[in-house]
Amino acid sequence: MPALNPQDAAARAVARCRTLAAISDTDTGTSRAYLSPATARAHAQLREWMRAAGLTTRRDHAGNLIGRLAANAPGAGYTTAPIVGVGSHLDTVPDAGAFDGVLGVTLGIEAAAALGDTLRPYHLDVVGFAEEEGVRFGVPYLGSSAVTGSFDPAWLDLVDAAGTTAREALLAFECLPDRIDRAAWPAERVRAFIEPHIEQGTRLHDADRPFGFVAAIAGQSRLTLHLTGAAAHAGTRAMAGRRDAAVAAAHLVLAARDTARDADDPDLRATVGSLRLSPDVRNVVPGGAAATLDVRHPDDATRQRCVDTVLERARAGCDAERVRLDVHRHDAQPAVPMSAALLSRAADAFPDAPALVSQAGHDAAVLAPVMPTLLMFLRDPTGVSHNPAEAPHEASLPHALDAIIRTVHATGSA
Amino acid sequence: MPALNPQDAAARAVARCRTLAAISDTDTGTSRAYLSPATARAHAQLREWMRAAGLTTRRDHAGNLIGRLAANAPGAGYTTAPIVGVGSHLDTVPDAGAFDGVLGVTLGIEAAAALGDTLRPYHLDVVGFAEEEGVRFGVPYLGSSAVTGSFDPAWLDLVDAAGTTAREALLAFECLPDRIDRAAWPAERVRAFIEPHIEQGTRLHDADRPFGFVAAIAGQSRLTLHLTGAAAHAGTRAMAGRRDAAVAAAHLVLAARDTARDADDPDLRATVGSLRLSPDVRNVVPGGAAATLDVRHPDDATRQRCVDTVLERARAGCDAERVRLDVHRHDAQPAVPMSAALLSRAADAFPDAPALVSQAGHDAAVLAPVMPTLLMFLRDPTGVSHNPAEAPHEASLPHALDAIIRTVHATGSA
Repeated sequence: MPALNPQDAAARAVARCRTLAAISDTDTGTSRAYLSPATARAHAQLREWMRAAGLTTRRDHAGNLIGRLAANAPGAGYTTAPIVGVGSHLDTVPDAGAFDGVLGVTLGIEAAAALGDTLRPYHLDVVGFAEEEGVRFGVPYLGSSAVTGSFDPAWLDLVDAAGTTAREALLAFECLPDRIDRAAWPAERVRAFIEPHIEQGTRLHDADRPFGFVAAIAGQSRLTLHLTGAAAHAGTRAMAGRRDAAVAAAHLVLAARDTARDADDPDLRATVGSLRLSPDVRNVVPGGAAATLDVRHPDDATRQRCVDTVLERARAGCDAERVRLDVHRHDAQPAVPMSAALLSRAADAFPDAPALVSQAGHDAAVLAPVMPTLLMFLRDPTGVSHNPAEAPHEASLPHALDAIIRTVHATGSA
Repeated sequence: MPALNPQDAAARAVARCRTLAAISDTDTGTSRAYLSPATARAHAQLREWMRAAGLTTRRDHAGNLIGRLAANAPGAGYTTAPIVGVGSHLDTVPDAGAFDGVLGVTLGIEAAAALGDTLRPYHLDVVGFAEEEGVRFGVPYLGSSAVTGSFDPAWLDLVDAAGTTAREALLAFECLPDRIDRAAWPAERVRAFIEPHIEQGTRLHDADRPFGFVAAIAGQSRLTLHLTGAAAHAGTRAMAGRRDAAVAAAHLVLAARDTARDADDPDLRATVGSLRLSPDVRNVVPGGAAATLDVRHPDDATRQRCVDTVLERARAGCDAERVRLDVHRHDAQPAVPMSAALLSRAADAFPDAPALVSQAGHDAAVLAPVMPTLLMFLRDPTGVSHNPAEAPHEASLPHALDAIIRTVHATGSA
């Protein structure tokens, strides 16, 4: 079915990611913020590639870029034909790698190019989502939320570091914030949304597999812990009389790590990523500390048990130091299973592809509750993420592209 | 010998500290910086009290305020009479208590008032030292260093937070920076320098004693520790593959605390007061950390052994986490013994007064190597330090003032 040479197509998708990596809001490195000038330039470049692949392009009012390869089979109605989506996000973290998100879009263009002359009863929509990372306004998944009709109008009043509201930024990008609801897709017509994404880990590389399918995106508990002891002079206050918040925080850090490690469950994570002492000076016993706790697992009950155990151990540590522990639980994100039907079809079609867990959030997590969604991981030998070193395994990529093309056509034609 | 009522005199010394606490560079609280407008106003108030007590006042070129009760015994030469000093510092930390330093000055004035008519072959110099805390220019003991002739001219180029050099600040305070060497006292004529200071602990209160004498000021080791692991995504990086600098830092914090606590030596202290992660964000495994280590003990060898043990344990913890530990040792301050002769005399005269260790630095630490120095601690039931709650035990203070007066007269007349 695909007319093109898959090696050439995969190489082109990689080369285009490198080209886009040079389109940055900064002079060096790759930093593309939501609705930024660099994003506008990246859109212009992608529209050119999309048009060359036979796609008609549009931008929705949330700032998502969409290229459509319209259904060409006899009798396919433009407003009634089923839809298959392929894509990922175009925004980046600061000083990002070239492939996180973007590779899913350039592979989508190659899939469209390959399918161009094939008779298709479905539209193929290649999507570059806007603002998956949440860098500019602190809220991730703005673009995919618009596509699923779950964009919260309150987000329009979010303010970036420069004092610009999302509403103002959208208008400056020639988007109409009050029309964002029109960005929602007709979910009942969507047969599949396929998000190809570099793995951000080395499970595929270790297993020598070119790609895999994600069974579920791990749920995430996010907590902020406030530890209150008593600040004291580092000389005059004897060891026995201290209520040292740094010592209590050390118990917490080890409780989190040991609980997750000792569970011997490869899908469990517990991290204290932020820890701030107060005061934070050389000659004062710290009287306070604020720490974050981030726990992830694809099974929500397992995740909750881990949180409970960490807190129980941390509380015992705090009690021993006579330090008060106050726990603030932010909204937890439950695990998101991907489409069982699409996973089953993928397992039949690609029996060697591993079933994986995604420990990071993706647009697929927003899409999956609304439309059949398949998150596909691409082998990256570096295993790093949000890092200029990230790079897909090039010999694997033609196989992945082939799987994307076959899945698009099979689901769209079913 | 003292003509005044010691209760009234002690109460006046306390009340004057409260009066001075209202003289602040800030609208609320007590914050008196070196050479600041509030310091000038505090000097004006103290000069008034000093003159009323019969002292002639001067300010030296480092900004120290000195009130002299001149020798009045027949035959005492003004330029040859022995000198006894009493005093402490007038500068404060931000949002300070009313008594740290200041009480030693107001008690000195009361001692002079009490001794006014007594025949004295010695000068009594009551000193309000400038800049003991080191808040403004980051270097402590500037005033006492000038008195001992150890003021480093390089300090004149230190810059405060507002960009003002010490030289400029001195000139604005009507001090001549190039004449600071003239602030040095003729050490060979000093019979004793007595620094009365609130205890900053509760050993006297626990022992129900009004005052005590410090045998030695603890030495201090100051280290900065850099921990280098690898930053990683808090989701995608499995527990087993992490090189978590926060976990390594937790080992360090516990190594410091456990080493000092388990030594079961009431004079040993080890503190991690500052700890900073990088990055310091919720969803990233910290790749780096910078921590401080502060270790104190009156015996230098014991202190050094504690540092060695903490580092050994911390290094084992870092090795286990595959985190590199780099150690930067700042200049250590050796322990400073107070005058053996004065301590022996004090032990004879006041056999119930406990011998103490000072775990905090004091002007006495700078004075002691140059002139016979006695650091006297005053009972404070609160035990706090650098805290608006600090307050001397008022029923104890007349006994302490009596001891100051007797010690001044005995050492000056010997």
